[in-house]
Amino acid sequence: MTDSQSLRDRLLEEINRIRVIDVHSHVPHDAPVAGSLRELLGYHYYTELAHSAGMDKAVLAPDRSEEEVIPDLVRALEHVDNTIQYKWMIELVTDLFGFQDEKLTLENWQPLADAVRRAAREPGRARQVMDQCNIDKVFLTNEFDEDLGGIDADLFGPSLRSDALVRHMDEADIRGRLEATSGVAIRDAGSMADAIGVVVQRFADAGARSASMSLPPHFCTLRTLGGEFDRAVEAVLGGRASDADVAVLRAGVLSLLCGFCDDCKMPVQIMWGVTRGAYEHGVYQGHDLLEAGDTLANLMPLLNAFAGVTFCLSVLSSGQEQELCSYGWLVHNVVLSGHWWYLNVPAHIARDLAARLQSVPKTKLIGYYSDMYKLEFGLSKFNMYRRILAQVLAHDFVEAGLGTEDDAVRIAHLMLRGNPQRVFGLTGEGQ
Amino acid sequence: MTDSQSLRDRLLEEINRIRVIDVHSHVPHDAPVAGSLRELLGYHYYTELAHSAGMDKAVLAPDRSEEEVIPDLVRALEHVDNTIQYKWMIELVTDLFGFQDEKLTLENWQPLADAVRRAAREPGRARQVMDQCNIDKVFLTNEFDEDLGGIDADLFGPSLRSDALVRHMDEADIRGRLEATSGVAIRDAGSMADAIGVVVQRFADAGARSASMSLPPHFCTLRTLGGEFDRAVEAVLGGRASDADVAVLRAGVLSLLCGFCDDCKMPVQIMWGVTRGAYEHGVYQGHDLLEAGDTLANLMPLLNAFAGVTFCLSVLSSGQEQELCSYGWLVHNVVLSGHWWYLNVPAHIARDLAARLQSVPKTKLIGYYSDMYKLEFGLSKFNMYRRILAQVLAHDFVEAGLGTEDDAVRIAHLMLRGNPQRVFGLTGEGQ
Amino acid sequence: MTDSQSLRDRLLEEINRIRVIDVHSHVPHDAPVAGSLRELLGYHYYTELAHSAGMDKAVLAPDRSEEEVIPDLVRALEHVDNTIQYKWMIELVTDLFGFQDEKLTLENWQPLADAVRRAAREPGRARQVMDQCNIDKVFLTNEFDEDLGGIDADLFGPSLRSDALVRHMDEADIRGRLEATSGVAIRDAGSMADAIGVVVQRFADAGARSASMSLPPHFCTLRTLGGEFDRAVEAVLGGRASDADVAVLRAGVLSLLCGFCDDCKMPVQIMWGVTRGAYEHGVYQGHDLLEAGDTLANLMPLLNAFAGVTFCLSVLSSGQEQELCSYGWLVHNVVLSGHWWYLNVPAHIARDLAARLQSVPKTKLIGYYSDMYKLEFGLSKFNMYRRILAQVLAHDFVEAGLGTEDDAVRIAHLMLRGNPQRVFGLTGEGQ
Repeated sequence: MTDSQSLRDRLLEEINRIRVIDVHSHVPHDAPVAGSLRELLGYHYYTELAHSAGMDKAVLAPDRSEEEVIPDLVRALEHVDNTIQYKWMIELVTDLFGFQDEKLTLENWQPLADAVRRAAREPGRARQVMDQCNIDKVFLTNEFDEDLGGIDADLFGPSLRSDALVRHMDEADIRGRLEATSGVAIRDAGSMADAIGVVVQRFADAGARSASMSLPPHFCTLRTLGGEFDRAVEAVLGGRASDADVAVLRAGVLSLLCGFCDDCKMPVQIMWGVTRGAYEHGVYQGHDLLEAGDTLANLMPLLNAFAGVTFCLSVLSSGQEQELCSYGWLVHNVVLSGHWWYLNVPAHIARDLAARLQSVPKTKLIGYYSDMYKLEFGLSKFNMYRRILAQVLAHDFVEAGLGTEDDAVRIAHLMLRGNPQRVFGLTGEGQ
Repeated sequence: MTDSQSLRDRLLEEINRIRVIDVHSHVPHDAPVAGSLRELLGYHYYTELAHSAGMDKAVLAPDRSEEEVIPDLVRALEHVDNTIQYKWMIELVTDLFGFQDEKLTLENWQPLADAVRRAAREPGRARQVMDQCNIDKVFLTNEFDEDLGGIDADLFGPSLRSDALVRHMDEADIRGRLEATSGVAIRDAGSMADAIGVVVQRFADAGARSASMSLPPHFCTLRTLGGEFDRAVEAVLGGRASDADVAVLRAGVLSLLCGFCDDCKMPVQIMWGVTRGAYEHGVYQGHDLLEAGDTLANLMPLLNAFAGVTFCLSVLSSGQEQELCSYGWLVHNVVLSGHWWYLNVPAHIARDLAARLQSVPKTKLIGYYSDMYKLEFGLSKFNMYRRILAQVLAHDFVEAGLGTEDDAVRIAHLMLRGNPQRVFGLTGEGQ
Repeated sequence: MTDSQSLRDRLLEEINRIRVIDVHSHVPHDAPVAGSLRELLGYHYYTELAHSAGMDKAVLAPDRSEEEVIPDLVRALEHVDNTIQYKWMIELVTDLFGFQDEKLTLENWQPLADAVRRAAREPGRARQVMDQCNIDKVFLTNEFDEDLGGIDADLFGPSLRSDALVRHMDEADIRGRLEATSGVAIRDAGSMADAIGVVVQRFADAGARSASMSLPPHFCTLRTLGGEFDRAVEAVLGGRASDADVAVLRAGVLSLLCGFCDDCKMPVQIMWGVTRGAYEHGVYQGHDLLEAGDTLANLMPLLNAFAGVTFCLSVLSSGQEQELCSYGWLVHNVVLSGHWWYLNVPAHIARDLAARLQSVPKTKLIGYYSDMYKLEFGLSKFNMYRRILAQVLAHDFVEAGLGTEDDAVRIAHLMLRGNPQRVFGLTGEGQ
């Protein structure tokens, strides 16, 4: 073993000891672990890759049984067994369900399916999985009108998923749901603001630590809310909104939301740059793409306007990664957060992480979040990240002469635990 | 030697054994090898680099003899002897013509020129060179009205070069050639479609396996062909086309072409993102540049519209590489193909390849094509790629824990031979 | 030590012997070294990172004493001690002021502050620092109406900073200053050209070797100057200029300037892509950001128009780096220069440098410039670059099979000394 490898291994050993905070997931608090192998394989990463590699969408018809679906999926996934996503699956079934092979095959999936079903019935399974992942706490993303009761605060923290409010307020259905949950009739910009305020306050009262949303490329934000917004709301409510009105509406709703987040000291998590529905023929949750050439400049008016709000930013396009670093470097209320979706691939993470570590204040880096739908994926996703973090800290930090091995360990603690705690105001909880 | 180096060397040994399919070249089937050293050095990579480094264009005047031109080129190429392109030249003249030095000099070019001329006269030289390159088959790119007779099907496969049709149909000259080759008088959108259909069928009948074209940044494609296209054709034929008409014409011709390719089961190779003529002062074939910040989003309507056509995509800008990966990952009819032109540089290939290997189904990766004008370049270009592939498979696949050494070898086979065979329907041929 | 490391170390030893030319700095010729620790820590890299990490701007109020300011800064910089910028500070105070610790603390800053003050009073300090940095000559950037007398030509070369002329000619204040320094009354496009010509000639007479400027993303340039420019000047002088007029004015002034540079054989240094004032809340010099997705295509008309002018280009966005390489590769009058600002980070430099070395003529690469405000930073910035250059030459050039160790050393000489000398016509000076 070279010196370089043993440094990396020592760092990894320390990193593995850190009890992480996962600041973004889609885990349902009432069904946090997978009930079946089909649920694990139903994660869009697998269905979309299988479909992309040639699998017919009909395989996934909801009326087909697990016995019918899984063999088809297993066959299709042979074509994607080179990917990190496939590796996630193998690592988690190995560590959590005692799977012993290197690939999923027509011969070995059934015992595995049994093991998944058995494990799902064990009491305290969620905490058990989180312990095995060495995850202390997982943030949820909850719809604005979701019931927040019954969330186990030892395991989970609610977070206001704001996509519907910000991107779909022009739809009567969303406004209807907003009126219902807030008890406020939306008659104009003012009452729309009141309704949003009620929602944010309800989330804050329930212990929510952030609002989060994904935004499309070229989304426009506003420096100030003026008469323009009032008129846009009026046009939308009157059913005669132009595209420009809708754009102003969206920017305005986002500003309102940020204002209330400011009042409640809630950071805002923005995932920037996804084009929903770009690919027509995809499977469920498999229609969205990034767009090269996009910029965060459109977000700057918002960052300037809400100097008191912390924005945790993720991007989807590699071309924006260095722009994101410059924002973290310069803009006091920007924190860099994780490696999102199409950038959540080792080769991308390694290079993005190296530049972040070398140019952004260490207190403004949230290393990783899982974005997972079931807790099991926290194991392999965070393990992947831990290995890359160890390697990058070894190569691009310690060996590059930027600090000592001890410095590197301290930085890893900040990125995986200390910064999430401080940024989201968790200090004192579950330490 | 470290473990890592010996892994890479073992992989390279296996990779060197793979008999590759070269899916894109500009080799003329009736003059596939270089007749002279001047032809080798006349490849635009050398003339454009020499000119860029200060060589007067007048050096290349067609009336100058080899004895006059080569010394000037040799002197100029001293300034570019750091580049991978220079390395290509040295490697191929060493392996194919017995050159023994590290640089081309005023002292050693003449014996080399003799060797090149001698070799060109050897019978069966093309197959001999291809064997030394370990290339099984080379795709050509043939003009739409080119005579396809006399192509040696053991060595070559024709391919319909569609640039003129797609990008220049507004020019009377091109339409005249299209009418002549198809026997169809172009009077409206319908007859234009007929003429294109005749061309595609002629290519299919001649064994062509693909249509290929390069497109400029911001090129627009259409989801459906409607009255808009009819009117654009009318305007063009009537000599009163606006820029918008021409844009619709181009998009429409591309759609027509894809429709006929669908009928003939011909994949479409699209090289995206070259701005022709950007640099005014360049040498022959040395005027074209990429444009940073461009996106593939404009191609999405076409990909959605022709779900039955396989699109083999290359990009020219590093900012689009990760976007391309996401397309290969998600979109069922997209295959990633090679490393084109300004991205055909080891540092770019290595990083682009790592991400492709980690996130795109292995069956949707065509590793490399030569884009060469003479067969000799297949040697050094593919050798360069083989070395990078071995290194990336070692470092970013096996060592990164994504698979075994055997998996890596199997993936290399797919990328260099199996996928080209399957995608272009060559299975059974020349195996 | 592995073979690879010892190769790198041998290369570094050779590189360290090269007496470099620094082609771009903001050093004031009459106060080239730091008078105090506060001046060192006042470099915007430190104040902006400290502020970004949470420090109140009020810390930097000009009426606060060094004893008040520095402890606050030291405390804030703890949060950024992972960055390369922090490393620059530690390396320079260690090598130039005998600092012995790994971090700056509340305990150790005062002796350091004393050492800085003492050193500043030593006679010949500037040359002494430059010798320790192994810098032969430093280019300044001088305002167009600055007094160029008293510049020590052994140490410094003046350069015409053209930002005000190119970007602010629509402001009466700038025109007033231009009239005052040139003695030409600006009444129309012709007299504006005359005034600019006087300025360029004055700089040329004073030994200036270049004009330099930073330009914003999307800046437009013109292929030719026509009546459009005359009308734009008229509109600006008449106080009724539209945004479009101002854009034409700027493009036109840049063209005029390039024309005069052509006459005087002065290369033009363009730093492309900074959005001034993007971030509202920043500290002094801490408001500017890059924009992802931008392209150099807008610069092409200028590059085409002034084929006799050498343009030394830097970019600010990683998405443009490969575009920049293609320009250096193809366009005869483009030289690649350094690693600017947000790209001046080891992880970015290493990857950008590898591609430059493999694809751009070696005679068209200016390795690095300091961009510094005080000479001391030349030490750690150039040392950082030397280490990366050694590593990249070892890994991506020698080990990648592109050339020998001797070739690598020769390339390093060109990049750090030979090319700056030739490009800026310094041959024969201070060798």
